Amino acid sequence: MSFHLPAYTPPDFSRPVFHAAPTVTFKPVEQSGVAPDDYHGTSIYPEYFQIRTNEWRLLTESRMDCVVVLNPDETLQATEFRRLKKGDRVACGRRENAEDGIFVHVNAFSSTDRTDDKFVFRSQRTRETSFSIDYDELYGLLNHEHQHGFIVWVLGPATAFDHDSRLAFTALIERGYVHALLAGNALATHDVEGALFGTALGQEIYSKRSVHLGHYKHLDAINAIRSAGSIASGVSRGVVREGIMHAAIQKGIPFVLAGSIRDDGPLPEVISDVYRAQDEMRALTRRATTVIALATQLHAIATGNLLPCYTVKEGRVRPVYFYMVDMSEYAVSKLSDRGSLTARSILTNVQDFVVTVERGLRERQKTC
Amino acid sequence: MSFHLPAYTPPDFSRPVFHAAPTVTFKPVEQSGVAPDDYHGTSIYPEYFQIRTNEWRLLTESRMDCVVVLNPDETLQATEFRRLKKGDRVACGRRENAEDGIFVHVNAFSSTDRTDDKFVFRSQRTRETSFSIDYDELYGLLNHEHQHGFIVWVLGPATAFDHDSRLAFTALIERGYVHALLAGNALATHDVEGALFGTALGQEIYSKRSVHLGHYKHLDAINAIRSAGSIASGVSRGVVREGIMHAAIQKGIPFVLAGSIRDDGPLPEVISDVYRAQDEMRALTRRATTVIALATQLHAIATGNLLPCYTVKEGRVRPVYFYMVDMSEYAVSKLSDRGSLTARSILTNVQDFVVTVERGLRERQKTC
Amino acid sequence: MSFHLPAYTPPDFSRPVFHAAPTVTFKPVEQSGVAPDDYHGTSIYPEYFQIRTNEWRLLTESRMDCVVVLNPDETLQATEFRRLKKGDRVACGRRENAEDGIFVHVNAFSSTDRTDDKFVFRSQRTRETSFSIDYDELYGLLNHEHQHGFIVWVLGPATAFDHDSRLAFTALIERGYVHALLAGNALATHDVEGALFGTALGQEIYSKRSVHLGHYKHLDAINAIRSAGSIASGVSRGVVREGIMHAAIQKGIPFVLAGSIRDDGPLPEVISDVYRAQDEMRALTRRATTVIALATQLHAIATGNLLPCYTVKEGRVRPVYFYMVDMSEYAVSKLSDRGSLTARSILTNVQDFVVTVERGLRERQKTC
Amino acid sequence: MSFHLPAYTPPDFSRPVFHAAPTVTFKPVEQSGVAPDDYHGTSIYPEYFQIRTNEWRLLTESRMDCVVVLNPDETLQATEFRRLKKGDRVACGRRENAEDGIFVHVNAFSSTDRTDDKFVFRSQRTRETSFSIDYDELYGLLNHEHQHGFIVWVLGPATAFDHDSRLAFTALIERGYVHALLAGNALATHDVEGALFGTALGQEIYSKRSVHLGHYKHLDAINAIRSAGSIASGVSRGVVREGIMHAAIQKGIPFVLAGSIRDDGPLPEVISDVYRAQDEMRALTRRATTVIALATQLHAIATGNLLPCYTVKEGRVRPVYFYMVDMSEYAVSKLSDRGSLTARSILTNVQDFVVTVERGLRERQKTC
Repeated sequence: MSFHLPAYTPPDFSRPVFHAAPTVTFKPVEQSGVAPDDYHGTSIYPEYFQIRTNEWRLLTESRMDCVVVLNPDETLQATEFRRLKKGDRVACGRRENAEDGIFVHVNAFSSTDRTDDKFVFRSQRTRETSFSIDYDELYGLLNHEHQHGFIVWVLGPATAFDHDSRLAFTALIERGYVHALLAGNALATHDVEGALFGTALGQEIYSKRSVHLGHYKHLDAINAIRSAGSIASGVSRGVVREGIMHAAIQKGIPFVLAGSIRDDGPLPEVISDVYRAQDEMRALTRRATTVIALATQLHAIATGNLLPCYTVKEGRVRPVYFYMVDMSEYAVSKLSDRGSLTARSILTNVQDFVVTVERGLRERQKTC
Repeated sequence: MSFHLPAYTPPDFSRPVFHAAPTVTFKPVEQSGVAPDDYHGTSIYPEYFQIRTNEWRLLTESRMDCVVVLNPDETLQATEFRRLKKGDRVACGRRENAEDGIFVHVNAFSSTDRTDDKFVFRSQRTRETSFSIDYDELYGLLNHEHQHGFIVWVLGPATAFDHDSRLAFTALIERGYVHALLAGNALATHDVEGALFGTALGQEIYSKRSVHLGHYKHLDAINAIRSAGSIASGVSRGVVREGIMHAAIQKGIPFVLAGSIRDDGPLPEVISDVYRAQDEMRALTRRATTVIALATQLHAIATGNLLPCYTVKEGRVRPVYFYMVDMSEYAVSKLSDRGSLTARSILTNVQDFVVTVERGLRERQKTC
Repeated sequence: MSFHLPAYTPPDFSRPVFHAAPTVTFKPVEQSGVAPDDYHGTSIYPEYFQIRTNEWRLLTESRMDCVVVLNPDETLQATEFRRLKKGDRVACGRRENAEDGIFVHVNAFSSTDRTDDKFVFRSQRTRETSFSIDYDELYGLLNHEHQHGFIVWVLGPATAFDHDSRLAFTALIERGYVHALLAGNALATHDVEGALFGTALGQEIYSKRSVHLGHYKHLDAINAIRSAGSIASGVSRGVVREGIMHAAIQKGIPFVLAGSIRDDGPLPEVISDVYRAQDEMRALTRRATTVIALATQLHAIATGNLLPCYTVKEGRVRPVYFYMVDMSEYAVSKLSDRGSLTARSILTNVQDFVVTVERGLRERQKTC
Repeated sequence: MSFHLPAYTPPDFSRPVFHAAPTVTFKPVEQSGVAPDDYHGTSIYPEYFQIRTNEWRLLTESRMDCVVVLNPDETLQATEFRRLKKGDRVACGRRENAEDGIFVHVNAFSSTDRTDDKFVFRSQRTRETSFSIDYDELYGLLNHEHQHGFIVWVLGPATAFDHDSRLAFTALIERGYVHALLAGNALATHDVEGALFGTALGQEIYSKRSVHLGHYKHLDAINAIRSAGSIASGVSRGVVREGIMHAAIQKGIPFVLAGSIRDDGPLPEVISDVYRAQDEMRALTRRATTVIALATQLHAIATGNLLPCYTVKEGRVRPVYFYMVDMSEYAVSKLSDRGSLTARSILTNVQDFVVTVERGLRERQKTC
């Protein structure tokens, strides 16, 4: 299955509604961290702001639930409330159809793929939804992104718990399918525990045999890395010789380990301030063209919040794909308002998913 | 990973408790379908009955929650309450340690695989339990059973909903890894809908596009098969040209389609009387050495009820393996009292499971 | 909250599409159990058939996935494929907008309750969906149906596992909120086990203490009832002195216990043939104005299949309400295509649900 | 049901194993934040350290996965790795049976409540486990703790999404059943959104009607509170007039709002550094005698990590109760290794749980 990026259809600015539209009102922030009352809040969609008459500017590097600040150089910036500074000029107006000088472009990439029957089965995505085509499309997408995109993976700890999926993910890193990693202390801890002791939470990773004093293993791993100063230093000193973190560090893949209140340790690279972690994550999601979130609600939803459905790459607007792999309909329902084109959920165990994707990409490479 | 059947350790009948034991009391059934008050109820474990002094006989072809009838030819038979006839002689006594002449042998195959720590993580099986080894052991098991065993698959409809898993399961049939099939009307209907129209509940199986009047497709499939007289006749007439049922019928694989109150149609082969269906299922599970249940609580639990944890094959007692593949901890918790050796749960989507197993077996075959 | 039945808006038959429409074509069944090729399949919606010019007749006592037979007395009957007899005249044509003389009326009860924003959160129903209003509306509905309707409850075994919910459901029967019961062998068995031994699967119902030889209790209960000849006879002989089945039998509430392949026993009233069970269920659902299904996928979906979204009561078309109470989004997603007005899912544990509903109704009665 | 605290049975220090035991070895920390190699890691159980011969000292205010520091004043302190300072003296030795001068006392409160049958059903806790007794015991416990304990509630956002549960929780605060609150930005945001606009994520809380521009509501709530400076200041200025946070602040209930990478805003009281948040949470869990976690995996597990199964209150050792209320077996399985006496899971929707508990406590109060 060859892969084609869906074309972007910009708004038709020749329509009367645009001609009748005012320019956007920008109001100054009066108290740092607080937006003017009628601030415009961002969505995941492309949004255009009429900066001056007939100049509709696309907001780039957007994310949802932010306000839009007009920089002194007249660039627009999607800005979190907490980052607003007194005097910042914030776009105001909540009508999304140009009447306030702001246009939210919801069907920019939409394809028509529907029947007009009064009744169709299976309108929601469940564990019974077939996903052969999703795998095949994903192979096409990833092979495209391998060269032309920026693939961000968001990992829950389960990815490192299983022998084969841990190896498969490591192979994905080595073969260039991973451009950034977002995770927490747990993923890195369990991966490093595997590297140091061959265990996950005290069970041998492959055999699942509980080892003696197994409940010490994750703490010993953390303590060893804290002693080394960092995971990176653990890698360079030969303490950590394999695994996901090892591969990422060897390859120079940027990663963000965001702290959480569940953490033991933590590992030295873990960012304890969640908003600084969010900023670091956003620095990577700004570049993302595809995001794949595996078995983590916390990090998946956090990343989804940071991620628009479009990005500008080489001067062209293109979709940002967001895959969420999870075992429960409840988890993926959180994704359901993002529209069907660029967000996909796959209901399965990530252990199978990672192994299958790695193998699928490898097989396609062979046949090319 | 080469596969070895775990050895069976029979009870040590030289122990004093056995010498002191009485012979079993058998009491006659006075009302058909009703057991004597202190009937002995069967378990999934090997059970021995002292028929006469020093003759402890193993109950064969057992199943749980039955009573044990002594046939006129002195064979023992695990018999459902509903099948008891007036005059049948039923084993009585509920003490399981030989004091009533009955011995329930619970650790016949047990291996020692535990630590003595006061605390271990992860005592239960969840979606985070790694399963690389389970796949590898399953490949070894299935290749053993391919020659020496009898593999019964229990299928939920999801197996037929996905393009790749439907093909993979068909390949498993063709390559001899399926010796019997247990399912319901839905599995067969969706499989036949796929064969006739390329759809599942009105969506193209691979592309998932909804076709016009798609909600008619499963009814049209049922109607076509009812018109042909049977699925088998649909196959022989060339109406059904591919798929799971087609492969099973072409290979002469025995199958039971058990009816349920959810059914449309039904297809002609579906058995409308559930207790007759249960009898037909048991006729196959009596022969089973491995059972794999995919994404169906109803049929999986029904089969589990019919299945002991041991069987006698070529004069030797061996374990019966029972795998349950499901997406929810709740479903597999129903299996948790069967002991860890012969019952395994794998928490994943059957679409991935079937494709992975088929590929794993194929790859191992190549390298042999 | 006072309760008002939503008004029914019949189709506007003065519209040109109806004037231009032909009368329905009825074709004879040529092989019993098989419909003509272009049979019309029923939906859950009101459907009108132009029997003769300008006479559009509403199909009553409908259910989905059936065909429509024109009886000799010119009444219409939604008929299962399996019940078709040679010579039956079956409505044909699949266009739903009158072009074939058939009109499917999908928005008969629709209320307008939506915003026109481009984006809204929470379009699906999950465990986080608040349900205070659903309880309150349900109290209003049930108090209306108590006098004017026919309330069918569909029970999974969990209803009988909990001390308080078992008592609460019994109270609902006694106070007239239960007009029919649909369940399986398991619900009745566990309820009777409770009545005979105070246990559920061998645990004391309230304390949950495992009793000695507890795994015999459900079998002993079944055996005792089989000995008595029926649950009803167990009640009349004083063997069964309390519980759900006792209350239903004492009140003369009709019930259907549909057999399944999981069953032990079974209890004598259990219907072994699933299609006869389906017929008996439908005899009750034809009369239903509200159905509440508790913690059972098998019986809930089976009942949903038998249930249209409307019925005719005292000459007027009114909605049929269908509530499904379950713990998983996956289960209730099966209901999602039924439309939001007459189908509601409540994601909670039925133990809480039954206790809450019983108390809510009691408190409202006091204040009246 | 009157409530009795189970008695604590201290270890029998007259046993030979204790007489033969050495005193604990304490080793100095050489690098801040790094423990000596053979550090002893804490559990949730009471642990005794032989400080000097025949002086076995109980570790108080413990938590799992910490090391134990001997303070200059000879008190013992369970200390997180990250808080270790160079020179701290850390207890070493991993044998838990006194051989290293350390004794982990695992069955301190155990009651005997089991049968010796070879087989029992239902060894795990699922949605089908009856919970009438759990509610009743909880009422007894909470009424005891109301006077004699310290009840910490851990809230997921769902508690504030529902009209009745939000009111019920507010009532629990007002009536003295809430001594501390642990939550995140989301709970407080949705609660404040409810107070300001009567909505939750843009839907009217009770009616669930989507309001115009509803997706702005949570941002507007955050912005208003940021403008006020804090939730507390919002309360004192009359901006926030009702709800959970309002009640907590009016009552002077301590609360910790821990930040996460999902957060919008955040609200001013939210702690952005997760380890400082953990410290603040632990300051409250040190005092906890009962913890009830509602519908939040992140906060529930984080709190569970901070919580031992015992505490010392008025000079006596008593259990710390930990309840987890969630919809999924997977979530509560994370709790399963904590033992059955002091940890309980209830599988239901927190909306029902909170309403039921509030009513149950109110009814019992009336009858006293």
